[in-house]
Amino acid sequence: MSITTLRTDGRAADELRPVTITRNWNAHAEGSALIEFGGTRVLCTASFESNVPRWLKGQGSGWVTAEYAMLPRATNTRSGRESVRGKIGGRTHEISRLIGRSLRAVVDTKALGENMITLDCDVLQADGGTRTAAITGAYVALVDAVEWARQQGHVSKRAEVLKDSIAAISVGVLPDGQAVLDLPYSEDSTAETDMNVVVTGSGDFVEIQGTAEGAPFKREELDRLLDLALGGTDRLAQLQREALAQ
Amino acid sequence: MSITTLRTDGRAADELRPVTITRNWNAHAEGSALIEFGGTRVLCTASFESNVPRWLKGQGSGWVTAEYAMLPRATNTRSGRESVRGKIGGRTHEISRLIGRSLRAVVDTKALGENMITLDCDVLQADGGTRTAAITGAYVALVDAVEWARQQGHVSKRAEVLKDSIAAISVGVLPDGQAVLDLPYSEDSTAETDMNVVVTGSGDFVEIQGTAEGAPFKREELDRLLDLALGGTDRLAQLQREALAQ
Amino acid sequence: MSITTLRTDGRAADELRPVTITRNWNAHAEGSALIEFGGTRVLCTASFESNVPRWLKGQGSGWVTAEYAMLPRATNTRSGRESVRGKIGGRTHEISRLIGRSLRAVVDTKALGENMITLDCDVLQADGGTRTAAITGAYVALVDAVEWARQQGHVSKRAEVLKDSIAAISVGVLPDGQAVLDLPYSEDSTAETDMNVVVTGSGDFVEIQGTAEGAPFKREELDRLLDLALGGTDRLAQLQREALAQ
Amino acid sequence: MSITTLRTDGRAADELRPVTITRNWNAHAEGSALIEFGGTRVLCTASFESNVPRWLKGQGSGWVTAEYAMLPRATNTRSGRESVRGKIGGRTHEISRLIGRSLRAVVDTKALGENMITLDCDVLQADGGTRTAAITGAYVALVDAVEWARQQGHVSKRAEVLKDSIAAISVGVLPDGQAVLDLPYSEDSTAETDMNVVVTGSGDFVEIQGTAEGAPFKREELDRLLDLALGGTDRLAQLQREALAQ
Amino acid sequence: MSITTLRTDGRAADELRPVTITRNWNAHAEGSALIEFGGTRVLCTASFESNVPRWLKGQGSGWVTAEYAMLPRATNTRSGRESVRGKIGGRTHEISRLIGRSLRAVVDTKALGENMITLDCDVLQADGGTRTAAITGAYVALVDAVEWARQQGHVSKRAEVLKDSIAAISVGVLPDGQAVLDLPYSEDSTAETDMNVVVTGSGDFVEIQGTAEGAPFKREELDRLLDLALGGTDRLAQLQREALAQ
Amino acid sequence: MSITTLRTDGRAADELRPVTITRNWNAHAEGSALIEFGGTRVLCTASFESNVPRWLKGQGSGWVTAEYAMLPRATNTRSGRESVRGKIGGRTHEISRLIGRSLRAVVDTKALGENMITLDCDVLQADGGTRTAAITGAYVALVDAVEWARQQGHVSKRAEVLKDSIAAISVGVLPDGQAVLDLPYSEDSTAETDMNVVVTGSGDFVEIQGTAEGAPFKREELDRLLDLALGGTDRLAQLQREALAQ
Repeated sequence: MSITTLRTDGRAADELRPVTITRNWNAHAEGSALIEFGGTRVLCTASFESNVPRWLKGQGSGWVTAEYAMLPRATNTRSGRESVRGKIGGRTHEISRLIGRSLRAVVDTKALGENMITLDCDVLQADGGTRTAAITGAYVALVDAVEWARQQGHVSKRAEVLKDSIAAISVGVLPDGQAVLDLPYSEDSTAETDMNVVVTGSGDFVEIQGTAEGAPFKREELDRLLDLALGGTDRLAQLQREALAQ
Repeated sequence: MSITTLRTDGRAADELRPVTITRNWNAHAEGSALIEFGGTRVLCTASFESNVPRWLKGQGSGWVTAEYAMLPRATNTRSGRESVRGKIGGRTHEISRLIGRSLRAVVDTKALGENMITLDCDVLQADGGTRTAAITGAYVALVDAVEWARQQGHVSKRAEVLKDSIAAISVGVLPDGQAVLDLPYSEDSTAETDMNVVVTGSGDFVEIQGTAEGAPFKREELDRLLDLALGGTDRLAQLQREALAQ
Repeated sequence: MSITTLRTDGRAADELRPVTITRNWNAHAEGSALIEFGGTRVLCTASFESNVPRWLKGQGSGWVTAEYAMLPRATNTRSGRESVRGKIGGRTHEISRLIGRSLRAVVDTKALGENMITLDCDVLQADGGTRTAAITGAYVALVDAVEWARQQGHVSKRAEVLKDSIAAISVGVLPDGQAVLDLPYSEDSTAETDMNVVVTGSGDFVEIQGTAEGAPFKREELDRLLDLALGGTDRLAQLQREALAQ
Repeated sequence: MSITTLRTDGRAADELRPVTITRNWNAHAEGSALIEFGGTRVLCTASFESNVPRWLKGQGSGWVTAEYAMLPRATNTRSGRESVRGKIGGRTHEISRLIGRSLRAVVDTKALGENMITLDCDVLQADGGTRTAAITGAYVALVDAVEWARQQGHVSKRAEVLKDSIAAISVGVLPDGQAVLDLPYSEDSTAETDMNVVVTGSGDFVEIQGTAEGAPFKREELDRLLDLALGGTDRLAQLQREALAQ
Repeated sequence: MSITTLRTDGRAADELRPVTITRNWNAHAEGSALIEFGGTRVLCTASFESNVPRWLKGQGSGWVTAEYAMLPRATNTRSGRESVRGKIGGRTHEISRLIGRSLRAVVDTKALGENMITLDCDVLQADGGTRTAAITGAYVALVDAVEWARQQGHVSKRAEVLKDSIAAISVGVLPDGQAVLDLPYSEDSTAETDMNVVVTGSGDFVEIQGTAEGAPFKREELDRLLDLALGGTDRLAQLQREALAQ
Repeated sequence: MSITTLRTDGRAADELRPVTITRNWNAHAEGSALIEFGGTRVLCTASFESNVPRWLKGQGSGWVTAEYAMLPRATNTRSGRESVRGKIGGRTHEISRLIGRSLRAVVDTKALGENMITLDCDVLQADGGTRTAAITGAYVALVDAVEWARQQGHVSKRAEVLKDSIAAISVGVLPDGQAVLDLPYSEDSTAETDMNVVVTGSGDFVEIQGTAEGAPFKREELDRLLDLALGGTDRLAQLQREALAQ
């Protein structure tokens, strides 16, 4: 690993792409954020419902769930709509489940009461890291939806629905052996190892998904990747706080 | 009909909502436009392919098609994803077909050669008139995609692929009998008659779809609505020219 | 336009094909009619249910809906079954919705009470104008089903469920510029403009769907087409009355 | 078993309902027949294609297949469309396969050459025995389609495509122990045993499907049912010959 | 028919393949059996539920149903998963329905009370006769599930839920005219006639499904096949008793 | 964490459940293994095809893919079949993708040539760790299928298709804070953290998927879990070698 090599976009190995979070991009949703990680652009909306899925009824707990999708031309070549094919692909399912699990990790579902919040994360433009941008932006939309529910009296003013913040970032090992943070599509598509890490505002792990796309990776590489990831999520947590402070 | 009554948003009966057309909103597509009719926001992308559907192969003609969809939280209450339900609803199908037919009306498919352009019109936020905004914005994306194809040599420089411009607007009769142009959701949902009109830059009709939602309508009302529509599409054609001139 | 040219089947421009309406063709349905417009043959059945869709429950109103379909060999070449493909095509959806809207335009759903009538319009043989034949025949089946419901005491004897009659016809502009009424498949497939018009017994419009298949059309052509259509639906309304009088 | 008891419709135990076969009911198909067994009415069309399914290509053999379906209101209460549900039910599949197998039993697929005939059997009105009426009517449509193919030169004039005729009938044991032929819905729905028998013109079996709906049945009952069935299919074979002679 | 010819596996014409029934192969189900007919291996599980389908509620009766499926590599060449294709094939549907009907023929659904038992029959390895093995094995699983329900108090101790035992076997006519019992895949795939017979422990018929795959068959052949089948199911009933006695 | 506490099944924290690998359980597949991790029982079959998916044709490379599924009654309560529901659930998709990726990590697809191997992993009985058992067993089936392909001459005798072995295990943190290896369902369903780790025979990571089901986890816990996992996969690699040596 030679940390002196610059990346194609000139960033340092441990540097995030420019991140923008635009709150309330959508006029209808109880919470929403358009989040950008460089050329990746995800619209996250939070929809509140005073209701829970059937299997939760009468238990005094709420639920938070997520659906992830890509517009057909979010990517470089157009891909067919899942609604037209009549099936949701495996990748879509997997990411939707990941986003839902990640957000629930910081939600006290008892404090939420018998209410449900659905996070829709629609990728308007993709350039790597769509799932991590989705988690990071969905958290902001979720905070606003919980606040809305509090204002409307659906949730008790004293309830601590959110136990912490949550953010996610990708890390990977490039073919030259360099470990890097926040990979755009050009790096991601050739990386030897690819890892997505979901971390709370306090710095604890909620999810680690690492895959050897090329050669299997060693424990030392794993450690280097986790260091980078924790630096990135720490910075994202700060950007979330700034966005929510406005 | 009392033309002195102001509409809820203060517009005159024959006035469009503020229209914004942002070209090249998407970095990947061969043509794209984010179009806004007031609170309605549709992302239109044009995807070029040097290929035609099987039933057209070897005939020297191209094809233009469209797919319309809404994000789940484009509307005031969240609606389930069609990809999750595994079926495209009737309304979605109908509007996709309308957009495709409308654009093909101004395309010389022979001049396009054996190439295909797919227009994706995704409603990011809905406030009435989504199909008319989609047609109007898709035309702008289509112009840029044809130009791109010309630059790339996929289409002959001298070919006149586009025979005219195309735009669309809604008109309707309010419960008080007033005929109005470009209805937002609040007006649309209570209108007695609802009509979508697709008109070329030269002022000829490509499509008229009028429906009595309340009482059946008379020939005089139809005439009044068509007058309003032609005024609106004339103004939209001018806005398209301005956007394309930039 | 040369109104002296005879059409391929020898009809005048403003002449309907032979229309036959056979009431009670089906022994099980609460109302039914086999309607023929020349070689187009549609079986319309009305099914009554003392129940409404969930979203209407407890509101004291009823509902009328329709489903349109074609047998695989209704057309000149066999087309695959939608049940086998597992999806309903866009055209089917669109026509089903049109039939339902058209019938509801003459139904007082309050007077119907919390009851539902489903009109199934199955095309047994197609030769152009299947949707207009379906609307015209479905009205006859609907009248009989409402009468049945009255006899059975499901609907009050004094309720005026049907506010008017409803019929539909196609009009179009042939390649020679001639505007004609009630197009068979041979004319429809080459028409420049194609329009379906749904009109009440009183002569008011319920639906106008006009499409430029070839060149866009001008306002004068539209006026000529509407004149023809109103003549046709007036004649159909009379044939409906005659069928119901038997 | 008391053979003196009359059946509800006055028939003797071994008597068919009135059978009507109307050839060429459909103007488009290469062969067609509307067949009626009492109140059961099935439209059978045969569609010829100079092509075979992929798995048969290049083997010099043809194929005959069938699709069975019911209109929603063929029955006493309306049932949902399979196209709307997006799935074909088990019963539909099973009957389609039975009809296809039965017809192939009398077809010399080598003599047919690389051609395919699809039999669509659509039940317009149901009153028991729809699958047996479908097989019996489909044979008539098939004969006409083969003749058409011969006239068109798709099939050699000397080829003996059809090796025999084929017909089918239902038999059953009523609750009073009586074995009867050709059960209408009222008998079928209460029968202890229900059997469908497919027999060639020469009197050999192609398919026997017997089910104990109530008590299991004994070998003697089976023998009695087969006697009745062979009498019925013999009579149907004669009616097929008469229809084809016209 | 020459009864002196030995079959490829050396069996006599009226001889079953080795049959093994392993009870309680599955640790979770209320009843289960792994049944083997030679190389055919079917895992049958019975799942008990104190509940009935909606259409049975409040009638004091229970229900028994079955689902049949094959693992993708149960057969000699891999076949695609029905879950991946998103549709259940006709053959699967047909066999599932046959198994359910066969088991219900020996169940007193009133005695079962408002409870439901689902038999899953999954073919782990196929070598002909999978549906008959499934019925024979499912009966054993059903007996254990009923006994479990009795122990748990869901079903009255005195209720005679099972009126008889049930077993099934295949019979067929080989190309040399020989009628044989229990066909492995190699015989089944070339048989002229193929018949599945479902018989109670008392020797009465519940289902007969005979198909001429090659030449139609005569009444004498049918009689010979039924004789063989009754011998086979008698032997299977004994093996079921032995398995249940352990 | 108290490492002195015994687990419910008496195992030490770093002890695997009894593992059994039965090779060639299926008579048809080119490779197969029934693998058991305690009460978890997965049938893995490898199907060889001299063909590649369309997107790989002509590139001289092969492909290895996997499909995972559960029998309906593999679990304690019956779950509906995905084939009946017509959709594959997110969890199934996700695990199928994980198995495929894990196996491909040790396959030299160039050395495999233009051939494809599909691993079907069907869970016959589930008690936690089904995905890890599936990966571990699928490797054994894969080795046998590659060997078969070599014997048949589909793959060069000198080609090193398999670069290493691959195995997987689950690790987790119990509510009392204890980190444990190879969790059965009873532990898995209450674990605070749940991690699946896929490791090559050489001890390098191919996949790490860790999820905080309860409280987020700290870096030290992660390290402890990885230690346990590496011990477990090392033992599994040895068991694979022993099975393949027989």
